[in-house]
Amino acid sequence: MAEENGSVASSALVSDLPVKRSREGEILSDNNNEKGISVEMVEDSKVPECISSVIPGWFSEISPMWPGEAHSLKVEKILFQGKSDYQNIMIFQSSTYGKVLVLDGVIQVTERDECAYQEMIAHLPLCSIPNPKKVLVIGGGDGGVLREVSRHSSVEQIDICEIDGMVVDVCKQFFPDLAVGYEDPRVNLHVGDGVAFLKAVPEGTYDAVIVDSSDPIGPAQELFEKPFFESVAKALRPGGVVCTQAESIWLHMHIIEDIVSNCRQIFKGSVNYAWTTVPTYPRQASLITKFQIGVIGFMLCSTAGPPVDFKHPVNPIDDDDSQKAPLKFYNKQIHSAAFCLPSFAKKVIDSKSK
Amino acid sequence: MAEENGSVASSALVSDLPVKRSREGEILSDNNNEKGISVEMVEDSKVPECISSVIPGWFSEISPMWPGEAHSLKVEKILFQGKSDYQNIMIFQSSTYGKVLVLDGVIQVTERDECAYQEMIAHLPLCSIPNPKKVLVIGGGDGGVLREVSRHSSVEQIDICEIDGMVVDVCKQFFPDLAVGYEDPRVNLHVGDGVAFLKAVPEGTYDAVIVDSSDPIGPAQELFEKPFFESVAKALRPGGVVCTQAESIWLHMHIIEDIVSNCRQIFKGSVNYAWTTVPTYPRQASLITKFQIGVIGFMLCSTAGPPVDFKHPVNPIDDDDSQKAPLKFYNKQIHSAAFCLPSFAKKVIDSKSK
Repeated sequence: MAEENGSVASSALVSDLPVKRSREGEILSDNNNEKGISVEMVEDSKVPECISSVIPGWFSEISPMWPGEAHSLKVEKILFQGKSDYQNIMIFQSSTYGKVLVLDGVIQVTERDECAYQEMIAHLPLCSIPNPKKVLVIGGGDGGVLREVSRHSSVEQIDICEIDGMVVDVCKQFFPDLAVGYEDPRVNLHVGDGVAFLKAVPEGTYDAVIVDSSDPIGPAQELFEKPFFESVAKALRPGGVVCTQAESIWLHMHIIEDIVSNCRQIFKGSVNYAWTTVPTYPRQASLITKFQIGVIGFMLCSTAGPPVDFKHPVNPIDDDDSQKAPLKFYNKQIHSAAFCLPSFAKKVIDSKSK
Repeated sequence: MAEENGSVASSALVSDLPVKRSREGEILSDNNNEKGISVEMVEDSKVPECISSVIPGWFSEISPMWPGEAHSLKVEKILFQGKSDYQNIMIFQSSTYGKVLVLDGVIQVTERDECAYQEMIAHLPLCSIPNPKKVLVIGGGDGGVLREVSRHSSVEQIDICEIDGMVVDVCKQFFPDLAVGYEDPRVNLHVGDGVAFLKAVPEGTYDAVIVDSSDPIGPAQELFEKPFFESVAKALRPGGVVCTQAESIWLHMHIIEDIVSNCRQIFKGSVNYAWTTVPTYPRQASLITKFQIGVIGFMLCSTAGPPVDFKHPVNPIDDDDSQKAPLKFYNKQIHSAAFCLPSFAKKVIDSKSK
């Protein structure tokens, strides 16, 4: 299992008052994990940029491009803050959602509700095909998707390509229940650009590709465009499957419409939209989507080859492994239910799927 | 159709700066509907109590009993505020959710997402039985549930018992798309206590009872306890159905557990839990549940008699009526999907249902 620790060199563990910005050369230390500081008493002028100054002591997602709504979690302690080559990273202890991972000011993971997202993005594709053997995860540096993929005993190889090594490192430090995914010997970590990685993959390599990405508006935009989907299709075996995070029907039907349209042109098997509820999502949201409405969706597509009927899973999870924590969210019924859409969304998506 | 306008006498239409409290004797006027004021520029000291002082110009639900989370909508204009015999009532124009109805500081309805709640709470029960004729709505003063019930051409009588006449009046004024439900000649409005009303109902009167109530902790607590469910069961014909708002599985599994247990003892037909997504819900939340996670649930039960299989609807909606706006959310697939629960919730509810 490859691993890159170099990027931690530019991070900082916040362990004394007042809250300070990251400094070069500070290294994470196991001993300091829980010595984060409370920001409740910190003066506004000393609060880090990634903490909202709107409600002192609270983390708020309020976007200038979608100014009408905000979602706030009370910050008990800041456990970590740092700046990687790609983004600002913060981890705080919330009063009600456990530990929270924030990248560039946007909530990525909370301990309380991560199960719904991780289980669905992994098992919707993997339970839809018989005996998946080779799986690629793009993004997903926290390790949660790996944890779920590794429940499948048929899987022999799990590659993950995460662009930000610091995300991997801090999640190993602060989110052991997610990063446990890295402990599986089938996992190979590649720190680098997912688009470039995919281009170099030999044709027909994977049974399944899971794209645990940020939103289609912003830095991850190319992960929702035709060239990327073409790379994914090429990397998949005939009848292979892809699952990619695909926004919320309550917010962005026009974006979903375009994604469905692109996928329909590239994936010659089946193209489907599924959704589920995660209280603190959409996550990893762009400037436009930076608020929470509790619903996130997925595109599920297959390449030409053996047909895949995503709505009727053929590969039940082996949930008898007593060494693993039981599934919290996913089951066969909720798998099929995820493809049942409200009428306003069904109308748009069906018209683009044909 | 009975109607009570007297309670409007103690309300006020806010139409000039600074924001002021309601005064006796001010009457709603059609001409003034859109002359609400913007609170963005109002000094904190003059902001009405029901507007958060935490983020000036924003409406925030932040509860002292559940202090870790807040959900905020930006207030463009306050259109109405008043105090009825039962509660504080405010209506504001939000920047992204259309008009918003707030009772005692808690969001009840937003124009943007009300369709999901109203359609599901009405059609889950009514599509599960053949030819419903007599329907009772408890609560639901905004009229949205009536609007949905009236889509069913088999229905001959729609009784509604809403405790707060002022809610009915202001919704007729500011939410015509909801209050249109009152225009159906089959509707009979009773302004009064739903518990007392139900007790007086002759045995076996209704095919369906829909309880559009506030939460089980607080003033509406008795609407979730055995005596109330007994009254409902008595008011229903054999094989009649009830649908009642029943919290979110992400928040209150212990409360849901108790409700399921109570229902199991009273309703000798079937007892089921369903859920759906509504971005700004839970609504009408108590002190404990005063925040938004985007998921709301329903209890669906039937009395002894002809068996009711709620998961497989037998009574499709006649959606061909061109005089009515088409359904936005509900369809047959989403009806069945609503009964598929995440594993953590299924485990608890199944154990109480047996």
